[in-house]
Amino acid sequence: MGKRNLYLKTTPVEEAKKIYLEALKKIWEPAYETIPVIEACKRVTRHATYAKNSSPLYNASAMDGIAVISSRTYGACETNPVRLKEGEDYVVVDTGDPIHHPYDAVIMAEDLLETGAEDEVEITASVAAWQHIRPVGEDIVAGEMILPSCHKIRPIDVGVLLSAGITEIEVVKQPKVTIFPTGTEIIEPGEAITDGSIIESNTRMFEQMVIEQGGLAKRCPILEDVYEKILEEVKKAVAVSDMVIINAGSSAGRDDYTVHVLRELGEVLIHGVAIKPGKPVILAIVDKKPVIGLPGYPVSAYIAFENFVSPVLAMMGQLPVKTDYEVPAVVSRRLVSSLKHKEYVRIKAGVVGGRMVAAPLARGAGAAMSLVRADGFCVIDQNCEGVEAGEEVKISLYRDPEEIANTVVVTGSHDLILDVAADLMPLVHSNMHLSSTHVGSMGGLMALKRQEAHIAPIHLLDETSGIYNDSYIRRLFEEPVAIVTGVQRIQGIMVKKGNPLGIKSIEDLTSCRFVNRQRGAGTRLLFDYQMQKAGISPERITGYDREASTHMAVAALVEGDSADAGMGIFSAAQSMGLDFIPVGEEWYEFAIPEVFMELPHVQAFLEVLKSEHFAREVQRLGGYGMEKTGEIRWIR
Amino acid sequence: MGKRNLYLKTTPVEEAKKIYLEALKKIWEPAYETIPVIEACKRVTRHATYAKNSSPLYNASAMDGIAVISSRTYGACETNPVRLKEGEDYVVVDTGDPIHHPYDAVIMAEDLLETGAEDEVEITASVAAWQHIRPVGEDIVAGEMILPSCHKIRPIDVGVLLSAGITEIEVVKQPKVTIFPTGTEIIEPGEAITDGSIIESNTRMFEQMVIEQGGLAKRCPILEDVYEKILEEVKKAVAVSDMVIINAGSSAGRDDYTVHVLRELGEVLIHGVAIKPGKPVILAIVDKKPVIGLPGYPVSAYIAFENFVSPVLAMMGQLPVKTDYEVPAVVSRRLVSSLKHKEYVRIKAGVVGGRMVAAPLARGAGAAMSLVRADGFCVIDQNCEGVEAGEEVKISLYRDPEEIANTVVVTGSHDLILDVAADLMPLVHSNMHLSSTHVGSMGGLMALKRQEAHIAPIHLLDETSGIYNDSYIRRLFEEPVAIVTGVQRIQGIMVKKGNPLGIKSIEDLTSCRFVNRQRGAGTRLLFDYQMQKAGISPERITGYDREASTHMAVAALVEGDSADAGMGIFSAAQSMGLDFIPVGEEWYEFAIPEVFMELPHVQAFLEVLKSEHFAREVQRLGGYGMEKTGEIRWIR
Repeated sequence: MGKRNLYLKTTPVEEAKKIYLEALKKIWEPAYETIPVIEACKRVTRHATYAKNSSPLYNASAMDGIAVISSRTYGACETNPVRLKEGEDYVVVDTGDPIHHPYDAVIMAEDLLETGAEDEVEITASVAAWQHIRPVGEDIVAGEMILPSCHKIRPIDVGVLLSAGITEIEVVKQPKVTIFPTGTEIIEPGEAITDGSIIESNTRMFEQMVIEQGGLAKRCPILEDVYEKILEEVKKAVAVSDMVIINAGSSAGRDDYTVHVLRELGEVLIHGVAIKPGKPVILAIVDKKPVIGLPGYPVSAYIAFENFVSPVLAMMGQLPVKTDYEVPAVVSRRLVSSLKHKEYVRIKAGVVGGRMVAAPLARGAGAAMSLVRADGFCVIDQNCEGVEAGEEVKISLYRDPEEIANTVVVTGSHDLILDVAADLMPLVHSNMHLSSTHVGSMGGLMALKRQEAHIAPIHLLDETSGIYNDSYIRRLFEEPVAIVTGVQRIQGIMVKKGNPLGIKSIEDLTSCRFVNRQRGAGTRLLFDYQMQKAGISPERITGYDREASTHMAVAALVEGDSADAGMGIFSAAQSMGLDFIPVGEEWYEFAIPEVFMELPHVQAFLEVLKSEHFAREVQRLGGYGMEKTGEIRWIR
Repeated sequence: MGKRNLYLKTTPVEEAKKIYLEALKKIWEPAYETIPVIEACKRVTRHATYAKNSSPLYNASAMDGIAVISSRTYGACETNPVRLKEGEDYVVVDTGDPIHHPYDAVIMAEDLLETGAEDEVEITASVAAWQHIRPVGEDIVAGEMILPSCHKIRPIDVGVLLSAGITEIEVVKQPKVTIFPTGTEIIEPGEAITDGSIIESNTRMFEQMVIEQGGLAKRCPILEDVYEKILEEVKKAVAVSDMVIINAGSSAGRDDYTVHVLRELGEVLIHGVAIKPGKPVILAIVDKKPVIGLPGYPVSAYIAFENFVSPVLAMMGQLPVKTDYEVPAVVSRRLVSSLKHKEYVRIKAGVVGGRMVAAPLARGAGAAMSLVRADGFCVIDQNCEGVEAGEEVKISLYRDPEEIANTVVVTGSHDLILDVAADLMPLVHSNMHLSSTHVGSMGGLMALKRQEAHIAPIHLLDETSGIYNDSYIRRLFEEPVAIVTGVQRIQGIMVKKGNPLGIKSIEDLTSCRFVNRQRGAGTRLLFDYQMQKAGISPERITGYDREASTHMAVAALVEGDSADAGMGIFSAAQSMGLDFIPVGEEWYEFAIPEVFMELPHVQAFLEVLKSEHFAREVQRLGGYGMEKTGEIRWIR
């Protein structure tokens, strides 16, 4: 079997973080530099900064008008106006002009009466000393503390520093981070794809994450899995960087040299952390510098970065570690987790019926799209076996809570038109959003019943009546529910281009590798119905139990030759360049309980459905009938 | 009186914004450009983006181990192990390796038994087809929507775009914004300061604000108040920019040419907005481009930028206007506002006794430090005359709510040592903060009673006993209150360097210009006590009613010759280079109700008080006794 690192001892997350940071704190030497204030935005102050001069620098007029000697105005009133002479009793001033002794008050231009003479005015009220004068230091007092130490400079701080006479400031040096992509199977984005090649994207993500956290990132070309080469390059990088990141080579594969290289060059403090996703992490110190090996799966890479690289960057940047803002939410599905690790579950969030609802997304370490789609995440602690549906958890949000409150939550059957609607929502109403999770038609109706979604897209055939959807709603709901017509669409069998196995109907599926949809999916119900009509039992279908959760996922499996056939909609087959054997037409519709119908974001969704822009985009996907799109019927 | 724009008609904020944005939307032509994905972070997508290829691109092993033909493993169990041969029954695979027909499952290396032979393994359990295989498209399915249109690209998006085979992307062009500082009295930061000069800092703040909102900023050299010059430069700038900002020249002063220039070059839609601070705003369109005149006072400038420039940048960047996240809070002071304008009041926020408390800060248009110190703001609508103390309002926060929850709220008498403590708090406990507002000793005790602060710094002399603080607490509080000793400090009379008026004692203050502290300030009580002792009535003191709210503000007025003398502490006089006539020693202490004593951030504050670092910094300020610092006595 060759040389492997079979035994990754996994350390609990918090312990690993503590061990590593404490070791680094002992050896890390902070570095500083003095830079011009006008370039210091986003940088972090070394010391507390005190004002060099006051602002205003002098007593200044706060108005456009005249500066007067207040005692000369005493006694002025409507019946006894006082006449003042320029040069003697007053000088004309604009806002910001200095006021000198003996002048000690300002009268606004609006309160002056003209006398006809150019150098004379009349007033009908006396003024108190210091009226409309901004005293020296009103804004900033020389010597007062403007910014504390370890403060991240904002635009307003730049303004105030300059006003206070400070043009240079000592700030924390930005840590230089060198990032190595490694792996013989890895190719650069844009290079020709061959079998087994993986497009390198993690280090490009890291690069941007380092920049976001105030570091300077240098991403190197891909390193092949050659021990000596990796050793040499890492050694060189450590000499000129404050931190080195190596991706991937951190698990226990045959070619994963990273840990051996780091043991030879320095000390490996942690190898393997009890975190999911993200377990294969290496935390090492080489020549007093942190060197971190991050896992290869995109989601693992992201979560491991946030957990282990971010705190080191915060330490180097002398900023507190960004803590996530947690809000309470109800989970929409049971979440089982292992006692072996702390788990990060990505979630979609929405406010339904006044409660924040969190719908868990795909949990695979590779499911990068779940990170893109996520509104936040929920952490399941290592000592917790999971959370029941309906239980309250704390979630950390990536998105603004206000934005989430303006999001219509769509849970149920999947169709590509949902993506189109989600894209158009903010174009139609700039602050409205649509978020969809795909749990199948029945799952969607259950979510509606539990008040975890506003809208459930469904396509449920009543086998006895041949009518879609209505009878299911009638059976499940007591309260009135609107059914809004989405599209009429064609379901069928997706097969490889050219249909190499010559599949013509359901019957032919007994002699090929099939991939099914998940339980509760309308498409699976349709397949079951068709099989029953044809008198075929599930055992005769190879792959009946193999489940994919969207039309596109099924299409991808067929296209990638990991299955010969699957059921799905025409647009999915077309988008993947597959052949398609139609089985029947069906109604894909939206169930919306009456209580949600008048919500502004639900109304915005209905508006999108009926828009020309939506019609145009959906027609482009192909295979959809839209004659009745947007029509509403009520089931009471 | 010369030429003035006396009549600024002020338009309500929302109306002004609407008029301007609608006019701009009619003429603004969006611009796009195609750029490499690796440079696209923070840019905004033009179209929805669909995956070019799936990821993984093939069925891939999810584990390090062996790829097998699942049917060959059937029947394996503890009592009947199955022996597999390399090349025939299995191939060795690492995570990420492609799995080809006929292999259809992976067994983890950990589950293999060695047989002694290099090319043979034994298993004790059968495996299901597709076990430990990441199917094609598990992560990303070719053709699926990755990012919607108008989406601001994040690091994770960069990763997923590259994985999906996308290396270039069409994004919204960054708007080019030219910024002009204007004004003959204005000087560049670092230039020699003369009487009447104002350090130009607003446009440096604007520059950073434009960058933060995704624009490209070009700040020009200062323009003098010469009509033809401004006209010529603005005209040139409009030709090469997407937007022009002119600062200031937007009020009604004699030399404020901006509005005239803009009327000559294009159309002025709005001149003057009912907003405080921020009223003198010009919203114009020149050659189909937005040209905005912003006010000169720093706070006005900031608020006007946020209200009028930000929405235009959002429109050009095709992003929704950032909405502030509002939280409910109780105001700690009565706020009176005028029906003439919508008012932005900067606040300090803190969580006390489970409630969010908002303490209003200085409201002057120039008080830039109030913006630096602010945790957020509260808006008082134009149709509202104000808010009573204790009333609930909505506040928008600049800081993280979690950070605010970890902030100890200090309200009461002012001393420079509070700044020192605030600076040290996060150094001692990285997530703990201190925020102080200065309302005088009595104001602080009232805030404690109303549960609006955790700690009140006080120095209240009991004239009958000569003892500081205790009797005031006994009189006001029924519950136990700890008094923690801060410092012993010297109060005295601050006079200009060299003491030109030869002031020696309180008696001499009758013949000079005095500046007093606000009502309720311990220093004012001390002054009253000393006056009473000397038999001087307030009417004999010129400036008895002139109030400043901190020691430093008093010192600045004396230093700037707008007063001859004021009462204050030695460290303030020293920091301003003033002479000082000592009047007496006093105890500056911290009152903390028992209910707050055990809070972690209050404990952190006590730790700071007793730290060597604190002692060192305070000694440097001078004039403090620290023998008893940190000692606690209880008043029950």
